[in-house]
Amino acid sequence: MSERTPDLHPDDDQPWTALERRDVSRAPHIVADLVQGHAGTTFEYTYRPRGGRAALIVPITEDGRLVMLRQYRYPIGMTMTEIPAGAVELGEEPLDAAKRELAEEIGGVARAFEALPLFCPQPSFTGQIFHPFVAFDVTLGENAPEDSELLRVEVVPIHEAYRRLDDGEIPNGPSALTLFHARRVLSRRGLL
Amino acid sequence: MSERTPDLHPDDDQPWTALERRDVSRAPHIVADLVQGHAGTTFEYTYRPRGGRAALIVPITEDGRLVMLRQYRYPIGMTMTEIPAGAVELGEEPLDAAKRELAEEIGGVARAFEALPLFCPQPSFTGQIFHPFVAFDVTLGENAPEDSELLRVEVVPIHEAYRRLDDGEIPNGPSALTLFHARRVLSRRGLL
Repeated sequence: MSERTPDLHPDDDQPWTALERRDVSRAPHIVADLVQGHAGTTFEYTYRPRGGRAALIVPITEDGRLVMLRQYRYPIGMTMTEIPAGAVELGEEPLDAAKRELAEEIGGVARAFEALPLFCPQPSFTGQIFHPFVAFDVTLGENAPEDSELLRVEVVPIHEAYRRLDDGEIPNGPSALTLFHARRVLSRRGLL
Repeated sequence: MSERTPDLHPDDDQPWTALERRDVSRAPHIVADLVQGHAGTTFEYTYRPRGGRAALIVPITEDGRLVMLRQYRYPIGMTMTEIPAGAVELGEEPLDAAKRELAEEIGGVARAFEALPLFCPQPSFTGQIFHPFVAFDVTLGENAPEDSELLRVEVVPIHEAYRRLDDGEIPNGPSALTLFHARRVLSRRGLL
């Protein structure tokens, strides 16, 4: 596995300071800080602090197809085309989370992984960091979604996945960004 | 302006039902629902309901360069390379928000806009919908950031912006996804 980008460390100098903090929610952890900004003024900022991570996976099967999901997303009330993904558990490595999510969501086992550039899904609100991967030579079996996951596996030709992406048919932002970063890797390996 | 993708409407059939709801935060609006899922079990789901929107803009200057920002993001504690963006206000059209944010963040005025595919920044948590645009023939003037915005304008050759993107140097997810969607538009117009 290659790691192409450095970790996303906080800046050494922080121009804003938290004067007070109150918890807004425990799970997920959301706080409201009274902040003193760089201009000296104070304001409240509600956000999800650093710490949460997720793994996202572009699974490529042994016969060169791409495994997508149709998943119901309650906050937006839509069933979306996306890729396997899930939270990295406490103490877990992102790559291990990727392997676990592959197994849970598509019953998949991969022979190799390649890491893609890390990204923040919405840095104006959340300190979460997302870890995207491509998984190669994936074999598919029975999946085991949780009661709070409503999803259907859909295996498509790689070029069809990218047609959907370019045509705006993958509105799940983190899934779409992961697919875009994966495009160069798939091209380089002659898969696209 | 062309609109390339349909709006992201909720599904007609909703497989989950909210049995109870409590407010967790007012601004931003975050709720915790007691949900009855498709499997009949109940669980709590904390999320940001539908309604919020943001506009993101890839500004291309008259001399064919791309306007980026270096902006401090408090939740992640990092100064990031990104593109102009901001919330769509109540009653405002996304395109008007794009024009307003261009003026506020880079002192910019554009001669034309092209809409890119809509996306959800994190549909597992938020019902927000993001509206990305490319802005053409942008002239730059004095910007007027708010006290809670710490940003610096950086005008770069278009190919340099895409080198940074491909090399994983743009960790702001919504900015990176907007730039990827813009690539086809810029290629088609002979700008990249």
